[in-house]
Amino acid sequence: MTNKNAHRPWTWTIALCLAPATAWAAGGGNAPIVLLWIAVLLVLAKLSSLVEKIGQPAVLGELLVGVLLGNLVLLGIDTFEPVKTDVLIQFLSELGVIILLFQIGLESDISAMRRVGLHAILVALVGVVAPFALGALVVGPWLFPGQSMNTYLFFGATLTATSVGITARVFQDMGVLKTKEAQIILGAAVIDDVIGLIILAVVSAVVTTGAVNVADVSWITAKAFLFLAGALIIGQYSAPTVSRWFSHINTGVGMKFTIAISFCFVLGYLAHAIGLAPIVGAFAAGLVLDEVTFKDYDELEVVPQVRRELDKAQPEMRARVEKVLEHHAKHHLQTLMTPVGHLLIPVFFVYTGMQVNLSALADLQTLWIALVVTFLAFVGKLVSGLVAGPVRKWVVGWGMAPRGEVGLIFAIVGKQLGVIGDREYGVFVIMVMLTTLVTPVVLASLLKRDKRATAT
Amino acid sequence: MTNKNAHRPWTWTIALCLAPATAWAAGGGNAPIVLLWIAVLLVLAKLSSLVEKIGQPAVLGELLVGVLLGNLVLLGIDTFEPVKTDVLIQFLSELGVIILLFQIGLESDISAMRRVGLHAILVALVGVVAPFALGALVVGPWLFPGQSMNTYLFFGATLTATSVGITARVFQDMGVLKTKEAQIILGAAVIDDVIGLIILAVVSAVVTTGAVNVADVSWITAKAFLFLAGALIIGQYSAPTVSRWFSHINTGVGMKFTIAISFCFVLGYLAHAIGLAPIVGAFAAGLVLDEVTFKDYDELEVVPQVRRELDKAQPEMRARVEKVLEHHAKHHLQTLMTPVGHLLIPVFFVYTGMQVNLSALADLQTLWIALVVTFLAFVGKLVSGLVAGPVRKWVVGWGMAPRGEVGLIFAIVGKQLGVIGDREYGVFVIMVMLTTLVTPVVLASLLKRDKRATAT
Repeated sequence: MTNKNAHRPWTWTIALCLAPATAWAAGGGNAPIVLLWIAVLLVLAKLSSLVEKIGQPAVLGELLVGVLLGNLVLLGIDTFEPVKTDVLIQFLSELGVIILLFQIGLESDISAMRRVGLHAILVALVGVVAPFALGALVVGPWLFPGQSMNTYLFFGATLTATSVGITARVFQDMGVLKTKEAQIILGAAVIDDVIGLIILAVVSAVVTTGAVNVADVSWITAKAFLFLAGALIIGQYSAPTVSRWFSHINTGVGMKFTIAISFCFVLGYLAHAIGLAPIVGAFAAGLVLDEVTFKDYDELEVVPQVRRELDKAQPEMRARVEKVLEHHAKHHLQTLMTPVGHLLIPVFFVYTGMQVNLSALADLQTLWIALVVTFLAFVGKLVSGLVAGPVRKWVVGWGMAPRGEVGLIFAIVGKQLGVIGDREYGVFVIMVMLTTLVTPVVLASLLKRDKRATAT
Repeated sequence: MTNKNAHRPWTWTIALCLAPATAWAAGGGNAPIVLLWIAVLLVLAKLSSLVEKIGQPAVLGELLVGVLLGNLVLLGIDTFEPVKTDVLIQFLSELGVIILLFQIGLESDISAMRRVGLHAILVALVGVVAPFALGALVVGPWLFPGQSMNTYLFFGATLTATSVGITARVFQDMGVLKTKEAQIILGAAVIDDVIGLIILAVVSAVVTTGAVNVADVSWITAKAFLFLAGALIIGQYSAPTVSRWFSHINTGVGMKFTIAISFCFVLGYLAHAIGLAPIVGAFAAGLVLDEVTFKDYDELEVVPQVRRELDKAQPEMRARVEKVLEHHAKHHLQTLMTPVGHLLIPVFFVYTGMQVNLSALADLQTLWIALVVTFLAFVGKLVSGLVAGPVRKWVVGWGMAPRGEVGLIFAIVGKQLGVIGDREYGVFVIMVMLTTLVTPVVLASLLKRDKRATAT
C-alpha cells in the first residue's frame, strides 16, 4: 500500500501551503515533484549514452544509471528512494515497456519472418530449448541447490529470452542488417519473442497455480496462440478497414498516431484481460500495423514546409524530391512513435535498474555464479547457430545472445511472483548486462575478421 | 483519498486472480484498464475532430466528448465515472496541459513579440483590463449577486484569458498568419498569457489568504516577474551552453528531445516550487528554447533514408533538396513534441470536459446567464481592438476573443479553490466554448468581406 500513499504528502502540502499553486496545473493537485524526477531520469539516461562512445548499446547505460540511483542509499543518500515506489513513475515505466514492445513489433515484419523461413524457426527453437534446458536443469540444481522446481523453471525461462530490439540495433550499428545472418537472427528473434512470452505465461501459471497442470498449461498455450493468431489475422484484415473509416473523418498525422497507439493500448488491455501480459498485445499490435494500414493518410503532413516548396519546384525535380521523401513517409509510423519512446522507454530501463539491489551481490560467490550463468547463457544461444544453415554460424549464435529488456522482464516477473530472490535477480541482471555488453564486441571482431579473410 | 485508492481493486484482482498476468507488464501490477481508458479517450477525441468539417477547432470537439462522457451518468451509464477520479488519468492530463503550454511557448517567439511592439502591448493591456473589469464589476455583482468579492475577482480573471493556441490556429487555418492583424494578436496573446498567469497567481493568493494584502500581491507579482524574467534571460543564455555540453555526448534527435522536455519539466517544477503553476514554467521553457539552442544537433537524423538518397544525388539537386529539408529541420523541435502532444493533450481536454456537470445547467436561467456572460466576454475583448492602431480593428478584437484552455484553467483553479461553484463553472465553460466556437465563424466572414471590398 505504501506506493499508493506516496503522493499524499504532496497532496497535503498543496492543500495546506496557501500558495497560488494550490491547484498546480489544471487537472488537480498531483505531485509536481514527479516532473523533476522524470527530468532527472531522462537526462541521466541520456548522459549514460556515453557508453555508445565505447561501442556499447545505450540501453546498458540506462540500466547502469538505474543501478547507480537505486543503490545510492547504500552510501547514505536516500534522495531517490521515493522514486522506487512511486505509483506515477511505475505507471510511466509500464507505459514505456508497452511502447517499446509496440515499436519492436512495428520494426518487425510478418512477411520478412516468412521469408527467412525454416532456418529462422530452427534457430529460434534451438535458441529457446537449449538455454531453457541449461537454465532449468543445470543452472538451477547445480548453482542454486535446494530451491523449488518453480524457481528452476524461471531460471530456464529467463535464459531463453532474445532481445530483438538489441539484436536489431547491434546489427544496424554495424551496418550488416542486410546480410543473411542478420535476416535469420531477426526472424528467429521475433519468433523467440513470441515463444518466450508464451513460456513466460506458462511458467508464471505453473508458479501461481503451484503445480504443473497439463490442462492449464495447454489452455494457457492455446489462449496465447489464439490471442496472437487472432490479433494477427483479425488485426491484419480489420486494421486497414478501421483505419479507412477513420480516414473519412481526418487524414492527418494526429489521427494516424491516435489509431496506432490506441490499437496498441486496446490489444495490450485485451492481452491482460485473457491473462497474458499487456506487452504481448502491444507487440502483436506492432506486428499487425504497417504503413499499408495507413495508406489513406497524409504522410507528408509532417513536413508542410517541404510540401509548399515542392509545389514551386519543376516537375522532374518534384518527382525526384517526392521519391526521396517517400523514404521518410515509409517509416513514418515509427518516426511518430520515436518521441513517445524517448519520453517513456528510458524511464522503464532506469526504473528497472533501480530495482537491482547491489548489496545482494556483496559476496564474491554471487559474482562467480553470475559469471558462470553468463557463460551458460552464451553457450545456450551459440548452440542455436549450429542449425542456421549455410551461413556464418558463429555470427548467428552470437547475434542471438543479447537478453536485453526481455530477459529483465522475465527476471522481474519471477521476482514479483516470489520465485526469484534478490540474489538470483542480481545474478540474472548481471547476466543480461554481460550478454548485452559482450555481444557487440565479439560480433564486431567476428565480422571484421571475416572481412579480412575475404580481402586476402 | 478516493482517487488514491482507485487502483486498489486492480491491485487486489492482480494479487488474487492467480493468472500469469500477475505482474502484468514488468514494472509491477498497475491498472491495465487505464490503457483502455486512454485508448477510448484518444479515439473519441479524434472522432470529435468531425467538428473541423464544419469549420470549428478540434479542441471544441474534445471538450464536447468530455462533457458527453462525464454526463453519461445522468442517463444511468456510470462506465466512465471511475475515470473522473483516476489518479493516473489525472496525472496524464496534467502532463498534457504542461506539454500544451510548452508547445505554445515553442510556437511563440520572443523577438516576434518585440517587433509587434507597442500595439501588441496596448491590445494585451486593454484585453486584460476591460474583461477583468467587466467580470469583477459587472458579471459578478449583477449576474451572481450576494457572492464574495473573491468569487468576483475570479470571474474577472477567467474573462481575461486569451488562448494563444486557439488564436494562432484559427489564423493559421484561415491562411492569414502573415497579416499585421495576426502579428499583433499573436504578440498580444503571448503577453496576455503571461499577464493572465500572473493575475491567476495574484487572485489565487488573494483567495487563499482571504484578504487583499498589498505586500503579498506585490511579492507574488515580483516573484512571477522574477521567475519569468529569470527563466527567459538566464534560460536564453544558459540553454544553448547546456545544450552544447550535451551535444558532446550525443548529437542525436533523442538527446535534443530529452534536453527540451527535461528543461520544460524542470522549469515546471521550479515554477511550482516558488508558488506559480507548472504551466507557467513550461510556457517559459518553450519561449526560451528555439532551434538555435540546438544548432549542434543533427536535425536530419529523423530522415536517414533521405540523407542516404541525398548522398547519391547530383550536387545542384542535392543543394536544392537540402534547402527544402531545412524547412523541415527548422521546425523540428515542434515536430518532435507533436506526437507526445497527440498522446497527452486530448486527455487533458476530454478530462476537462468531463468535469462539467450538465445537471447544474438544467434551469433556463443558468443558460441565459451563460449567454449574457458570453456577450460580455466578447465585448471585453472587442474593446481591445480599438487600440490596435491603423489595422482592421474588428479583426483584432475578434481574434482576441477565444478563451480556450486558458479560460478553462482559470475556471478549474477557481473551482478547486472553492470560489467558483458548479453552476458558475458550467456558465464559464459555456462561455469558453461559445467564444471558441463563434470566433472562427465571425473572423472568417470579416476576412471574406474585406477581400470582397478590396476586389471591387
